[in-house]
Amino acid sequence: MKLNGEQRRTIWPSADARSVRIIDQTKLPHALEIVELRTVDDAARAIKTMQVRGAPLIGATAAYGLALALRGDATDAGLVNAVAHLAEQRPTAINLKWALGIVRDGVAALPPHQRAARALDIAAEICDEDVENCRLIGMHGRELIRAIADKKRGGAVNILTHCNAGWLACVDWGTATSPIYHAHDAGIAVHVFVDETRPRNQGAALTAFELGQHGVAHTLIVDNAGGHLMQHGEVDIVITGADRVTAEGDAANKIGTYLKALAAHDNGIPFYVAMPSSTIDWTLGDGSTIPIEDRGADEVLYVHGLRENGSLGRVLIAPPNTPACNPSFDVTPARLITGLITERGVAPASRDGLLSLYPERARQRA
Amino acid sequence: MKLNGEQRRTIWPSADARSVRIIDQTKLPHALEIVELRTVDDAARAIKTMQVRGAPLIGATAAYGLALALRGDATDAGLVNAVAHLAEQRPTAINLKWALGIVRDGVAALPPHQRAARALDIAAEICDEDVENCRLIGMHGRELIRAIADKKRGGAVNILTHCNAGWLACVDWGTATSPIYHAHDAGIAVHVFVDETRPRNQGAALTAFELGQHGVAHTLIVDNAGGHLMQHGEVDIVITGADRVTAEGDAANKIGTYLKALAAHDNGIPFYVAMPSSTIDWTLGDGSTIPIEDRGADEVLYVHGLRENGSLGRVLIAPPNTPACNPSFDVTPARLITGLITERGVAPASRDGLLSLYPERARQRA
Repeated sequence: MKLNGEQRRTIWPSADARSVRIIDQTKLPHALEIVELRTVDDAARAIKTMQVRGAPLIGATAAYGLALALRGDATDAGLVNAVAHLAEQRPTAINLKWALGIVRDGVAALPPHQRAARALDIAAEICDEDVENCRLIGMHGRELIRAIADKKRGGAVNILTHCNAGWLACVDWGTATSPIYHAHDAGIAVHVFVDETRPRNQGAALTAFELGQHGVAHTLIVDNAGGHLMQHGEVDIVITGADRVTAEGDAANKIGTYLKALAAHDNGIPFYVAMPSSTIDWTLGDGSTIPIEDRGADEVLYVHGLRENGSLGRVLIAPPNTPACNPSFDVTPARLITGLITERGVAPASRDGLLSLYPERARQRA
Repeated sequence: MKLNGEQRRTIWPSADARSVRIIDQTKLPHALEIVELRTVDDAARAIKTMQVRGAPLIGATAAYGLALALRGDATDAGLVNAVAHLAEQRPTAINLKWALGIVRDGVAALPPHQRAARALDIAAEICDEDVENCRLIGMHGRELIRAIADKKRGGAVNILTHCNAGWLACVDWGTATSPIYHAHDAGIAVHVFVDETRPRNQGAALTAFELGQHGVAHTLIVDNAGGHLMQHGEVDIVITGADRVTAEGDAANKIGTYLKALAAHDNGIPFYVAMPSSTIDWTLGDGSTIPIEDRGADEVLYVHGLRENGSLGRVLIAPPNTPACNPSFDVTPARLITGLITERGVAPASRDGLLSLYPERARQRA
């Protein structure tokens, strides 16, 4: 995607392949800072502190992080330790474990001195595949938007999204935003209601930012407002991303997604989840078994942003030391999801639906 | 209620009856500032800028504001103009028009020179009646909490509330919080999940503050988190206030209430709305006809709070000039409301339910 007019990905290796560069997403939209990851600890910290976030980008960063680890210690023990270290940085997004598994399986049979270079190649392949998958999600999702546009006879299609499942959450294009960008680029009139997405405000800080960079019409709303807008016919379709989708179609996504799915269902509005197949956890059926990260009280008690003096800072919104809890994801049951938009097409949120797109998974089970 | 250990109301006349004093709620919880209202314009501004807020307190402030107006101009024209001026400050809370109507009707037949003194007496009566109504709401609601406590055999009853329908929203006790305070004072173990309530964070700033002052266990959460907590059995009952309840039991309340009602319904959790009968708009049936205030983009784009240097300030959470919309209330349909807790008892959210408590309204219609 374009950032200040320049074509960018969210993660890329340096020219000498000794480090990897990312955009520090904790500073957006107020500052554009590029961070260099030189070690596995740098990569782990970037994931933990959410300099990178979003299920696909967490996976890509972990893959590069493992390559960086193997530059330092390519022994079997080094490989096992680095995988374990990176895997524990975030619990909910399955792409983290998925990407680490791909890299590990791709290098484990090699002699140690070949592992780092191969891991770097595999990380690049994971990134390229994510870009292509997100592009395909966009092509499939665009047709859902086009069908609504046809019914509205030229009126803008109003899309509500939650959190940032944009190109900043992936390597390029995004998951939930890819259909939006593809529709916009195809000349379909779209307008996006952007949930701010407390506590970290990824909607306000990241989704509003990237939609603005791409020239897509959008309106920022508080997380509380979406139900009211749906009651009043102002939302035609909801598209969100996911951090983990079970084999039965339950979807873990940023906290609050479930509330929007309930409101969409109550108002007869289609609710889609867009994600690459790397986000599917084929080992789980019931979404209530997905581990949900708790990120601590400070994210609830403080809000970060740009101060009036132009520096970044935070304000306390409650009495000091107010007890707070901060579950970071919730699970939307498949019954509330109209469909899953994947790189292979759109499927019902069910085991049969997913297997219709990924029949090789049925063969594996048989 | 007690504030720093001292018994307080949210509004009270000065000793010489020439002015009225309020707590500036835009400064809470970080600073306790008392503001003196000397003129009708002071009262109008306090309502408009939300130095006072909450349906019952808006009504009480408007009543005193009208008394202040009549000190300056007690003619028929002065009365009409002051009522119109005060009524237009906030559109959704019906208590504003209700209180102005009570004062107007109580002074209109008097000679002008008697009007100001009588208006002041009526305003005081409105306040006393609100205190008594909130106390009765608490007595009735306490029994709902007690019934859950009995089933839990000593485990704390987990109550979720949205926005601030506390004593700060009323003259004393609160509406949604009154059952909580009465249960707590009766020795029933309660714990409150407090929705922060973006965009103005009245939950974080006011409800967490007053529960803390009263010693009630509570946990602050982002507005997105309530559905997840309900899915996981962590909420036993939801109690909110209301800004206007129709004769058929639809309830307008702070934006986001509808989403929590949907989640409560989806998880089989009782959802109650607590309000005095002054919040009932007997002229409306369908809640979708309630006027919904739009408070503008800045409340969405900026978050106010305590800066690290100890002063109050705000931070920008989105790209500058991001378009935003800010509907401030939504309407929860009666079908999602388990019951209405009023000063006369608990009724189903329906015309028949309300008429069972207020039969004189049926006679008026006949």
